[in-house]
Order: sequence, then C-alpha cells, then structure tokens
Amino acid sequence: MMTNQREVIMQKSGIKQNVETFLSCDKPYHEADTVIFGAPFDSTTSYRPGTRFGSRAIRAESYGLESYSPYQDKDLEDIAVFDGGDLELSIGRVDLALEAIEAYTAQVLAEGKRPVMLGGEHLVTLGAVRAAAKAYPELAVIHFDAHADLRQEYLGATLSHATVIRRVWDILGDGRIHQFGIRSGEREEFRWAAAGRVAMHKFDLQGLEETIAALKGRPVYFTLDLDVLDPAVFPGTGTPEPGGLSFMELLQAIFKLKDLTVIGADLVELSPVYDQSGVSTAAACKLLRELLLAIS
Amino acid sequence: MMTNQREVIMQKSGIKQNVETFLSCDKPYHEADTVIFGAPFDSTTSYRPGTRFGSRAIRAESYGLESYSPYQDKDLEDIAVFDGGDLELSIGRVDLALEAIEAYTAQVLAEGKRPVMLGGEHLVTLGAVRAAAKAYPELAVIHFDAHADLRQEYLGATLSHATVIRRVWDILGDGRIHQFGIRSGEREEFRWAAAGRVAMHKFDLQGLEETIAALKGRPVYFTLDLDVLDPAVFPGTGTPEPGGLSFMELLQAIFKLKDLTVIGADLVELSPVYDQSGVSTAAACKLLRELLLAIS
Amino acid sequence: MMTNQREVIMQKSGIKQNVETFLSCDKPYHEADTVIFGAPFDSTTSYRPGTRFGSRAIRAESYGLESYSPYQDKDLEDIAVFDGGDLELSIGRVDLALEAIEAYTAQVLAEGKRPVMLGGEHLVTLGAVRAAAKAYPELAVIHFDAHADLRQEYLGATLSHATVIRRVWDILGDGRIHQFGIRSGEREEFRWAAAGRVAMHKFDLQGLEETIAALKGRPVYFTLDLDVLDPAVFPGTGTPEPGGLSFMELLQAIFKLKDLTVIGADLVELSPVYDQSGVSTAAACKLLRELLLAIS
Amino acid sequence: MMTNQREVIMQKSGIKQNVETFLSCDKPYHEADTVIFGAPFDSTTSYRPGTRFGSRAIRAESYGLESYSPYQDKDLEDIAVFDGGDLELSIGRVDLALEAIEAYTAQVLAEGKRPVMLGGEHLVTLGAVRAAAKAYPELAVIHFDAHADLRQEYLGATLSHATVIRRVWDILGDGRIHQFGIRSGEREEFRWAAAGRVAMHKFDLQGLEETIAALKGRPVYFTLDLDVLDPAVFPGTGTPEPGGLSFMELLQAIFKLKDLTVIGADLVELSPVYDQSGVSTAAACKLLRELLLAIS
Amino acid sequence: MMTNQREVIMQKSGIKQNVETFLSCDKPYHEADTVIFGAPFDSTTSYRPGTRFGSRAIRAESYGLESYSPYQDKDLEDIAVFDGGDLELSIGRVDLALEAIEAYTAQVLAEGKRPVMLGGEHLVTLGAVRAAAKAYPELAVIHFDAHADLRQEYLGATLSHATVIRRVWDILGDGRIHQFGIRSGEREEFRWAAAGRVAMHKFDLQGLEETIAALKGRPVYFTLDLDVLDPAVFPGTGTPEPGGLSFMELLQAIFKLKDLTVIGADLVELSPVYDQSGVSTAAACKLLRELLLAIS
Amino acid sequence: MMTNQREVIMQKSGIKQNVETFLSCDKPYHEADTVIFGAPFDSTTSYRPGTRFGSRAIRAESYGLESYSPYQDKDLEDIAVFDGGDLELSIGRVDLALEAIEAYTAQVLAEGKRPVMLGGEHLVTLGAVRAAAKAYPELAVIHFDAHADLRQEYLGATLSHATVIRRVWDILGDGRIHQFGIRSGEREEFRWAAAGRVAMHKFDLQGLEETIAALKGRPVYFTLDLDVLDPAVFPGTGTPEPGGLSFMELLQAIFKLKDLTVIGADLVELSPVYDQSGVSTAAACKLLRELLLAIS
Repeated sequence: MMTNQREVIMQKSGIKQNVETFLSCDKPYHEADTVIFGAPFDSTTSYRPGTRFGSRAIRAESYGLESYSPYQDKDLEDIAVFDGGDLELSIGRVDLALEAIEAYTAQVLAEGKRPVMLGGEHLVTLGAVRAAAKAYPELAVIHFDAHADLRQEYLGATLSHATVIRRVWDILGDGRIHQFGIRSGEREEFRWAAAGRVAMHKFDLQGLEETIAALKGRPVYFTLDLDVLDPAVFPGTGTPEPGGLSFMELLQAIFKLKDLTVIGADLVELSPVYDQSGVSTAAACKLLRELLLAIS
Repeated sequence: MMTNQREVIMQKSGIKQNVETFLSCDKPYHEADTVIFGAPFDSTTSYRPGTRFGSRAIRAESYGLESYSPYQDKDLEDIAVFDGGDLELSIGRVDLALEAIEAYTAQVLAEGKRPVMLGGEHLVTLGAVRAAAKAYPELAVIHFDAHADLRQEYLGATLSHATVIRRVWDILGDGRIHQFGIRSGEREEFRWAAAGRVAMHKFDLQGLEETIAALKGRPVYFTLDLDVLDPAVFPGTGTPEPGGLSFMELLQAIFKLKDLTVIGADLVELSPVYDQSGVSTAAACKLLRELLLAIS
Repeated sequence: MMTNQREVIMQKSGIKQNVETFLSCDKPYHEADTVIFGAPFDSTTSYRPGTRFGSRAIRAESYGLESYSPYQDKDLEDIAVFDGGDLELSIGRVDLALEAIEAYTAQVLAEGKRPVMLGGEHLVTLGAVRAAAKAYPELAVIHFDAHADLRQEYLGATLSHATVIRRVWDILGDGRIHQFGIRSGEREEFRWAAAGRVAMHKFDLQGLEETIAALKGRPVYFTLDLDVLDPAVFPGTGTPEPGGLSFMELLQAIFKLKDLTVIGADLVELSPVYDQSGVSTAAACKLLRELLLAIS
Repeated sequence: MMTNQREVIMQKSGIKQNVETFLSCDKPYHEADTVIFGAPFDSTTSYRPGTRFGSRAIRAESYGLESYSPYQDKDLEDIAVFDGGDLELSIGRVDLALEAIEAYTAQVLAEGKRPVMLGGEHLVTLGAVRAAAKAYPELAVIHFDAHADLRQEYLGATLSHATVIRRVWDILGDGRIHQFGIRSGEREEFRWAAAGRVAMHKFDLQGLEETIAALKGRPVYFTLDLDVLDPAVFPGTGTPEPGGLSFMELLQAIFKLKDLTVIGADLVELSPVYDQSGVSTAAACKLLRELLLAIS
Repeated sequence: MMTNQREVIMQKSGIKQNVETFLSCDKPYHEADTVIFGAPFDSTTSYRPGTRFGSRAIRAESYGLESYSPYQDKDLEDIAVFDGGDLELSIGRVDLALEAIEAYTAQVLAEGKRPVMLGGEHLVTLGAVRAAAKAYPELAVIHFDAHADLRQEYLGATLSHATVIRRVWDILGDGRIHQFGIRSGEREEFRWAAAGRVAMHKFDLQGLEETIAALKGRPVYFTLDLDVLDPAVFPGTGTPEPGGLSFMELLQAIFKLKDLTVIGADLVELSPVYDQSGVSTAAACKLLRELLLAIS
Repeated sequence: MMTNQREVIMQKSGIKQNVETFLSCDKPYHEADTVIFGAPFDSTTSYRPGTRFGSRAIRAESYGLESYSPYQDKDLEDIAVFDGGDLELSIGRVDLALEAIEAYTAQVLAEGKRPVMLGGEHLVTLGAVRAAAKAYPELAVIHFDAHADLRQEYLGATLSHATVIRRVWDILGDGRIHQFGIRSGEREEFRWAAAGRVAMHKFDLQGLEETIAALKGRPVYFTLDLDVLDPAVFPGTGTPEPGGLSFMELLQAIFKLKDLTVIGADLVELSPVYDQSGVSTAAACKLLRELLLAIS
C-alpha cells in the first residue's frame, strides 16, 4: 500500500523529489539484478488501440498492491529491482521503436541484469528477443497468448502485433518457441504451427510442466500477452477473446517458472482505457509482482 | 480481423460501397442457407433498457474476431450466411413488432433457409417461434437463460420479456420446452414448471446431453438468452444475475447442438451500453460464430 | 422485480408516498426480527474511496432482483425485515461515526433483533462488533475478506480499514476470529496471525465446515468484505485483489451459515462508481438476499 | 449538503428510518402546497432509453446541493414541499401509465396543491396536462424543448414522446401553447406550427418576456424538457441536440416564471446513464430547486 | 429519427438488406453530387488514439438526428449524397493509407462529384488535398483547428497529424492556407506562420468573413478538425484543448461557407471512446448535416 | 507533447531513469524559483471523494499539452520550475496532513521560492496559508470558487473543505479575503460574508480588476477551486455546481494576476474519476501552465 512506492531523492534543502516506480522497485540501477522498463508503443494495433498507456497505468496503480506475496512468502523489498521508467518510442516509426527496445535490452543484458519489459502491444517483444537471442544463442521462448501471432504478413506489414511470433521464429527457427493458451488466429497459422514450426498448446496450459522440465537449464525468454486471461478477468485489452485462463491458472503457471532460467520477460497488451474499473491493471500489477518474485 | 468483414458492392465507376455485416457473413441471399437478422426491440424491458442496440453492436464489433474457429476447425468463409441487417420495428407497438418478426422469419423458413435472429430483448423470440411452429408442427425449443420467463402476466401485460416462454408454451404445449441454467424467477414460475409443463434444468446445463439425445432428428429452435452467462463474463445485459455459466461451459454446450436439427435460433439480451469494455459484445460475437459453425 | 420493493405510507388524502427499501424488506420495525441499515462511511480508505455510496446503491439496484431464492426455496416476503435506511455519519470524525454505529446496533440487539449492516468501508464493522460483544460476551467472528486487516497501525492511525480486525481482536482476544479467503497483507500480518491470534484460512474457504461445526450454538457475527470475491465478479471495490472466490463458492458458503446462530452481520466495501456495469451491486444484492434467507 | 435531505420517521423504540427525498422537501403531505412525484416511464423513447431512472437520480444526487439559493435569496426549508416518491407505472402499457399520472395529478390539484412531476420521457406530460386542463379550463402551456414534439404520429403510434405536444394541442387548441428553444423536428412540424397552431420560438428564449406578460394571471403549466439545454451542459439525455441554451440562460428564464401563476410543472428527459459524471443530474437538481423557489 | 437512415436493397425473394449510411444519404452513386466516405486511420496520433472509430460512430449515431435543418430550412432528402462506407486503410503503413485516400478522392473528383471525408486523424487530409490540388490547381484551403499542425517534423516523422498542414503547404505554397481557431502549438509554428506562410487567425473565427469574400469563386477545400470546438462541447477527441469555439459559433461559420465553391471537405479527429455520453458524435453528425446542406 | 516531460537522470551505465513531472517543469530544485507539489488528500470531502488523485492526473495528462502559450507568448521552458512530486499525507489524520503541508510550504518560502500546490480537496489550502501568513504578515488571499467555504463548522468538524476559508479568516481577519464566483452555500455563510468579513463577489468575476489594483504590491496567495468553472467545462469534481465560469473567463482572469505579487498559489478539487473523457484534467493542466507563466 502506501509506503515504499516512490524513490526519494534528497535535495540540498531537505526537499525531496518523488519518482514514480512500480511498487517498491526502487533499488539503484547498479545494485539491481532485474530492470523493469516500459515500451509505450501500439502503432500496429489493428483493432482497439491504447496499450501505449499500459506501463504507465501499471506503475500508477501499483499503489493499491502490497509488496508481500502470501503465495510465495516473499517480498519485493527483499529483491533488487530497478524501474527505469518508460522508453521514448517513435509512434509510427516501427523500425526505430524496435531498435530502441533492442538497444536498451542489450545494454541491460550486457551488464548481467534481467530485463522485464512492460508493453505496449505485442510487437515490442521482437525488439527484446532480438537482443536476447544475440546474448543467448540457445534461447528458447515461452509464449502465453490468446492469439497465435504467426501470420507471415498482416495488412501488408511484416512487422505487426499479428506477426510478432513469426518474426521471433525467423530468428530462432523450428522448435524453440512454446505457445500456450492459443485460441484465436487464421486457419493458416494453426496449420503452419502444426507442421512443427512451433510447439503450440491450444486453449490452455496443458503441457507446461513437460515443457519446463525439458527447458531446465536453458536460457528462456518469457512473453506474457495478458489477453491469454479470460476477458472476465482482464477486459482492458485491445482484442478481448472470451474463453481464456482464470487468474489462478495463470498465477500457478507463473510460480512454475521458478524452475527455469528466465533471462528476460515481458507483460504486454494491457489497454487501460477499456477497463475503467481498474481490475485489469490490478491483475497486471499482481502478475508482475509474482513474476518478479518467481524468477529472482 | 480486418479482412472479409464487409460485403463490397461494385458500382459503375469502380467506386465501391462497403456494407457492414457480421464478420464474413456476406453471401448473397439466394446462395445462403442461413440468414442473420437483427430485431432491435426492448419495449417491455422492466429494468435497464438498451438491448435495442445489441444487434448493431455485434455487427460492428465482429471486426475484432477471426472467421476461423480453432475449436471446431471450421471457418465462416466456408459456409453460406446472409446478413439481412436489422428489421425496422415499432417501439411501443408490441403486436406490430412481433408480427414483423414473424413475417420475416416465415419468409426465410419458406425458402428453406435457417433464420438466426439477434435481439433485442427476449420477447422477440415469440415472433420467431410463431413462424417456426407453423413451419414445423413438431417443433421443440431449447432455452438457455438465467430467468424462467414463465409468468402468465407481468405488470398487466401478457406480452413481455418476463412472459415470453409462457407464451411459447401457449403455442407448443407441455413437454416441448427444455430450459437450462434457470436461476431466477418468482416462486410461482418454478412451481408451474415443476408441474411438468416445461422441463426446467435449474442453475446449470445438467441434463443437456440427454435432452439432445432425445430430440435427435426433431426440428429444434434454440433460444439463447445471453444472461445465462455469469455477469463476470457478460455484464452488458439488462438484468445481471450472478451465479451463471462460464463462457467455456456455454461454448461446449453449443458444440453439442451440432447433433440436432436446429431449424432456427436466436441470441438475445445483449445491452452494450452497460459494458463499455466491449467484452460482452465480444462474447456474443464469438458465440454467434460458433453457433453458426455448429449448426451448419 | 417491480413489486413489493417500496414501503407505501398512506396519507390522509389517499396520496401515497413510495419509499425506497431493499427489495421487499418493508416490514414495520416492531414486527421485524432483522434490521438492515446502511453505514455510509469511507474516511480511512487509503486507495480508491467511494464505499460511502454502497448501501444506497444496494437499495436502488435491488429493483432488478426477485425476492424469491430458487437456491433455498425461500422468499424474502416470508420473513420479517425492516430497512432503516442509512445512518448519518460524520465524514472525517472516525470516533463519532463508530459511536453512532455502536449505538444503533446496541439498540437493535437490545430489542432482540438481528442487525445487518451495509457498508461503507470495513472499519464500520468495529462499531457493530463493539455492541455485539457487549450483548454476547461469547461472541465469535467469521470474517471473509481478501485482506487480513490485521495491522496494528496504518499511516499513523489505529482506527483504519486496514486495522479493523486487529481492533476486533483487541475486544475478543485469541482464537475467536476465523478468517477465510485472505490473500493480501503485509508479511507481518500473516506472521502475527500464524502465531495463533486468529484462525486464518488463506486464499479460499477450506476449513469452513469444520469452523461452523465448532461454533454451533455460539453467537456469531459474520462480516463479509465483498472483495473476497474475485474482481472479475466484483470489480466495484476500492482495492481489487485478483485471485478471489467465484460467486458460487461464496454463495455455497453463505448457505452453510444457516447452521450457525448469526446474531449480526455486515456486507462491506462495495464501491459502485468503480463498476458502471452494475454487476458488483447486483452481486451484493443477491448475496444480501441469500444471507437474510439463510440466517432467518 | 448532508442535512435535511431525509425525512425521519420516529419508531417506537427510538429507531429512526431515514427516507430519501429531494433535498429538504420533507414536509408532510397535508402541510405541503407543492407535491413532487416521479414518473419513471420511457416506453416510447425511440433512440436511447433510460429516462425511467431520472427521478430516482435527482433524489439521490440532491445530496450534493444546498437548500439555499443565493440567486433568489430563498431557501427550500422555508417552503412546504412534499416528495411522494415515484409512481409505479406499467412499462409498455402507455394508456395505463398516462391514466395513473393523470389520476395522481388530479388528486393533487383537487386538494389545492401544485404538482411538480419528474420524468421519465416527455410523454408523461400528457397525463399531467389532461388533469390540469380539466381543473383549469383556461390553461396555457409554456414548453421549453430542443424538439418540437408536434408530429401527428410517430412509428405508427399517436402517443409518443415525439407527438406529446401535438396531443396537448388536441386538448387545448390553437394559441395556448408557447414553445421556446426548438431546434429539431421534421419540416412538417415547423410548417404546422408556423400555421398558427402553437407559438413556436425557435432556437432560444426570445419572446419569453412578452409571453409571460401576456399570460399574467392565467393558469400556466410549465413543461421543461431538459434537452433544451446544450448537451455540453446536459449530456445525460436520450437525444442530445447540440446548439442549446446555456445553464444561466435557462436559470434566468426560470426566475421570470415567478410572475406567472404556475399551477403545475414538470422536468423531463434526464437519462442519467448517459452522463456518468453526474453533471446532468446536478443541473436537474439545481433547476428543480430554483423552479420550486420561483413558483412558490 | 427512425426513417430513411438505411438504404434498402431488394432481393429476389422480397427479403431486404438494410445498409447503414449516414442519415438519409442513400442516393445511388451515379445520381449523387456529393460522396461521403470514411478514412479510419490514426496511426500517427501521438497522445490518445481512437479516431479510427470516428466515421463508424457518425454513421451509427446519425440515427438520433433529423434530416431536416430548421436553421437552413433544408432537408438532406432534397440533396443527392452517396455514402460509400469506410475505406480499408493499412494501419501503420502511412504511405499506403495516404495513397488509398488520394486515389479514392481523385476518382470522385474526376466524376464531377464533391468528396466529403470523415476521419480518422488529421493526417488523412493530406491524401485528399493531394488529389484536390491536382484537380484544382488554384485550390485554397480553409482550416479550422485547435492546433497549428505546422511542424516540419514530429518525433522523426514528416508525415504526422502534427505536420499535416505543413505538408499541405508544401503542395500549395504561401498564402493559400487560411487557419482559424488555432490555440496550440510550438512557438516555432506560430513564428513560421507569422512569417506569412499561412494566414493564421488565432483563438477564434475573426476574419472569416473577409477570407470568404476574398476566396469567392475560387475552389476551396475545407478541413474541419473538430477539436476546434471547446472540449465542453466536444470531449471525444485525442487531444482536448480547452478554450475553443462554442457549437453555435462553429455552426454559424459553416452557414457562411455557402458563399464559397467548396470542392471537397473533411471532418476529422472524432475519437468516440473518450466521450461515452455520445455528445461529441452527436455534434459531429449535426455539423456534417449542416455542412452538406450548406455546400450543396 | 512528447518531449521535455520527464527529467532524465543519468546512471553510471548510460541507463536513464524517467521521472514524471508536470510538462517541462524539470529544473533542479536549487535553480527553481517556483516549486510545484501535490497534496493528495480528500478526507473531509462530504459528497463524492476522489480529489486525492488530482495531482497525479495533472502530471500524467500534461503529456497532451504544449509547453508554449500562444496567449501569453511565453514557454514553460523559459522559466524555472521544480516539480517535487506528491507529499505523503495521512488519510484520516487531518491535523497531521495539514502540518505536513505547512512544513513543506514554509521550507519552500524560506528559500525564497514560490510554492504552487496541486490538490486534493480545498482544505489543503489551510496548511499552505498558515505558512504563507507567517512568512508574509500582510498577506491577502484571492479565492475563486463555486462554494463560499465559510461555515464555522461542518458535520461537527471545524477543519473541513466546507470551512476552509473561514479558518483562513481566523488567521487573516476581516477584509483580507477576496472571493469570486461564489454561487453556493448556506444562507448563513452569505450573511456572514455580507457583514464585511470577506469581500465576496457572487456568481462571476466582477470587481476583479479593482481588487487587483487595490492589492498591487501586497503579497497575495491565490487559491483556485477549479469548481468555479462551469461543470460543462469541468465535470471532474466532487460537487459540481452548474452556472459557473467559462474556461476563457477564467483564463483571462489568470492573465490579470501578472500585475500582482503572487507569493503562493494552489489549484484544488480536480477529481479525475468523475470525468473519464479527461477534459477536466486537460483544463487543469492548461490553467496551471498559464498560471505559472503569468506569475513568474
């Protein structure tokens, strides 16, 4: 709740300046082993835009959350997380935006820290994975999503929220991407996946434990499109797709990630304007807290 | 998503006119075997009005949905559905509105096509069933709803959203109506049902498989009051009644309808203004897609 | 629905005055065995205020609910409930507000009636428990909540929504408080509880049946912080905490209370402005109806 | 603000019941010279329904208003107003609803009191005018509105919010109706008015002083369709029509009514769901206060 | 209101299909002298996106408006307007989107018809002006807006809603652009304008009559950024800028356009999701009606 | 717009941390002559709470505003303003909160800087004036507000948003307070003011120029309750009071303040949750920009 949310910078006169961070993620950069940053970008969103405000909302609304997790019996105050705020990304210049994300991620990785990016739309994942794949050639990706995101092209664009995992495949190749919860896409995407390109687990999280066991010890990037949740739980997103996970199903899955070597992660597709109850943002905040605690 | 949603009508000059239909339901009438139409009527709604905007919202928001169903591995583009737009119904003249619905439904049935009506409040079902019962004297009705809708009279009116299934019983008589999910009504309605007039399955969908088995081969009209869903899933309705079905429970039930001869159907009681997240409309869109694919 | 919701007061001239009460809870005070009243107070709310409008919303929106419960096969019209409207409480004078609540509750108890208070924030429970503990020295408390509310102090205040159950413990002492559904708090609160002060059942309702069996015959006060529900079901609250109960889980638990001697109860933390779909208020109304029927 | 809003009914035991009325309009019926009542009816609304919740919202939100008017230097506590609550009107049975309104109004008039009705849609005015015209054969009507409401028939119905003033003309005949602010209608309505049937003042309030001077001493019914206000001021209505009055223009006009013999009045067409800021309801509350003070 | 809104296409069987158009703008293309079309594009919006839904909302909400204007004593049914629906524009491919708009506009102009485009963000104007400037080398532009839109570059992009009028100047050169109502921009934009590049009228519409007199007989393109209105009147826009025009000021200005040869026009920057009262869309609808009547 | 909004703090590694400030108010404290800070407190709000989120919303939404004012031809980048973020104030402990505000204000004043406080409710002004009156014994106060705020006591509390100016009078005494725009209060407040205690200018800003002339050279504290604006312009406030100032009337008044020695100021009573269009916050942002430019 009310304490520890903001980093306090002492000024000569005793006057402080408050800095908004996620919960108690106010460690100095050089002490941190995890770095949160926002990627406020939604230029390729085809239906309802607005995820550009996602990271800002998560930071602001984290005020209503405790830093302690009774599920994991851990506290954010015990781990070292730096919140770097939001990147300034060019709206409409997709290439520039992805380059900026890649550069930031590469810098964080180069200093031996773990990047955790807050979207924005799902395309931002491509920038982070580009950096991660260079740093970790053996990289595998675990992808939770309602949508396959495996199109070759969408509305004439090859860089799009609807093609992002296909672009990740361009980098990683066959068998390195593990999808869960997929319940929407073109027939062609499902066929392409079924041909062995990616390991697609439809509709729910069945097979997650086997996947985790198989990936043990390998560097893993975890990308969480929050619309994998049912819209009842998470209405604040651009393309709500009924029939998704319950909050507890997703939470239990996140706990299992502690058995993996998660070298980077993201949470994307929160669009706060479509949920004026704030419930979607509260869910994103709690999932971020639990993810940070699980992978630290 | 963005393609195939709108029927394109060529004009002399090469200028097109884009017409809004539900998803890719843009087949010409004479080729279609299923006909969608809207019945924007809510004059007898006793609590929160607004279902008159339901069919329009479904059409507009279908933009966010794919035409392909990974659940059934079928695509709307493979079936022949014509979307006739909304009927023009008289607000406040219940009889005229029901007559217009009956006439339209009768015409569609007479040409060997299957009508699928989008409400509007539940009373619109009466118009469609009147036509269906004339065309199919052996008609049975499967009714999913939170509310029994079995009152003899409501606020002095015999034609009302709260009496509609009783009026359907007036036409069909004992044992032809199968209700599921009922969790609200007057004590008297439950007693009347329990006396054998209708087969009422309270609270959930237990008994659906047996009912479907028993009705195999018979002409069935399926009326889906969307408030059978839990308000967490479907807040955009006039009279939210907590304790309802999950989206997946309803979806699984719809898949089972493929074993029946569904000669007509409706989805009613979406009131979009009460759900500004759009999640309720998204649920209605997806259920309509799956219903069309299941019964074709 | 439309009938019996309002108490009708005859005037000399035949002109009536329609008065808004909860559903058909329009019995005269002297005939009632249960007394509903509102406590519109939220001065210590630390995050999103607004529960001061909770009781008013429950009364207004009860219009959409039936008085009959098909779950319990009972009707509110068969029991004797008086709705006393809202108390006038001083905003910002916590002590005065609690005194007013205590006095009203004491009066109701003194006349052998059962008080059922509608919040307001959770601190209002303290006023009612003070009166109840005086009337029933053997009092036990059953507490459903997402939050532990066991802080010794919060932002310098000992009287706060975040300390309320600790203050109840000050009155009752060890082993008299039974918490269920708790999924949020400071680490310190969980440790204090685990030291045997209160019986805390984390995350869900496991152990409820054993608790009820153990408390049979003892006077019990039941305090229901509605945020024990998952925010998907109940977004209209000040501090939404994902991962809570489903509506049916809570409803089933309420039915079990009929085996107890519930001498008083409350429903708190509905903040209607955060749920403009009205679904949260509808849930509160239905839970209140079922609670009244279960404990009568 | 917080005081005097609710009528307090003493109970034997000292327990009070707080009853919600408009502001301090809590005089007993027999002492009152003005009687407020609600007519929650919107069955003929052709576009966005919801005015059925108008009177309830005015009562609830009056809490935020003072009883004293610095404009008129008068206080509601100095005048004698009884608030009779809402009538129970049949949704969908237009005739029955109008009869109930007429009967209530006639009773109030028969006892020498002044009725002030809160809509509901504009058609409710017809019920009140029927009673007023019987009681006062010389009745004139002053009508503020964005819409002419002069159709002979609308969607096949002669009783409609779009025909209500034409129906009033059926009763009163030529030259007795004075319209102000009209800025919307069919061409035919404007032509019919221009033929001398009614005195229509288009767009604004020009001519109001002359009309008031001419009607001095005659019994006048004042019907205020709140959509005469600009939607910037009053968005909460079914058919917003930009280009209307400012709040102060309307307020100044209401002050001028004190020179007339207003024997009855109404405020109609507030639809609170379309203005979740509450500003429209606040405007209605303040106009009602000033109207009551001006005509008393 | 309810009639004439939809074009009815007869089918063989007598079954009609209702097509949604703006009000009664349902003339066939070859008979029309004005062509409405939507440009649902907002990819360069830097603050709050959502204007992509503007044209759709105008069409849907025109249902609440009359086709007759009492201001101009003209009726939309008397003029010949074809509504071509929305273009399908590539999100994120600015060049492709502008080319599609230019091509459509060029076609309409080539057939001697007047294009009226509904945005979408303001950048869409560039596509239309490109076509118009080719068809009419003497073209002048009248530009109503809160924002100067005169940046040379914005966030690294030369094609942006913030640079659009500068790009129009690239085509037309000095002295051909007449801006009104401008109240926001960088200092540099105001200085550039003041250097004589464009005729900028700050804050309001002063000088409009002189401009119209000077442009009489010349081909004029009129671009109306609706945020020139005060946000009180028009909250539904991406970048609300207080201190703008009243609705009546803008309406009076539109009437004056009848003295010009308006060969094309647009209304842009309606973002309906930010005004859930619908008042902004209602304003856009009425302004479109009056504009069509004024320039026909 | 997008640039200059956030202060960038260099970290060793080249990684930056973004700090959220109002627009380009990112000067270091020791260089600043004006200090912005937030006072997120609303514990005594009697009607609709929520102003605790006002200062945060102003900071976040300033993103949509330019730093340049075409009205004053000045730019925020040219002046030296430090944004100190929000104070941490105790909810429910009025005395502690006021002490914290007083201490902060005193510190800023002691270092020769000008404090500009963002509310929060109006009571926060008392803390600031306490400090200002000690630093400047000749202090006068200019107060813009819809409400008189002159009660001696409210609901048993002497410290309240409804008594704040009376408490300021306790400090300053007769003739030092100049109120403008007052249109709501108890009769008693208006009488007390009229007795010469304060100079109350009712309803509008008449007399402002004379007041400014009279106060020239004297230290002035300016307190702006934003609800002095009409709710059409500013719906996002706790107690909307129709009939207020237009935005331009208020803006013109603020320009006039440049002739005064404003030693401190505040903007209070923005409650963003009640205006989901964001228009109220946009108005507050623009007024703050213009105020900072006028008084620097």
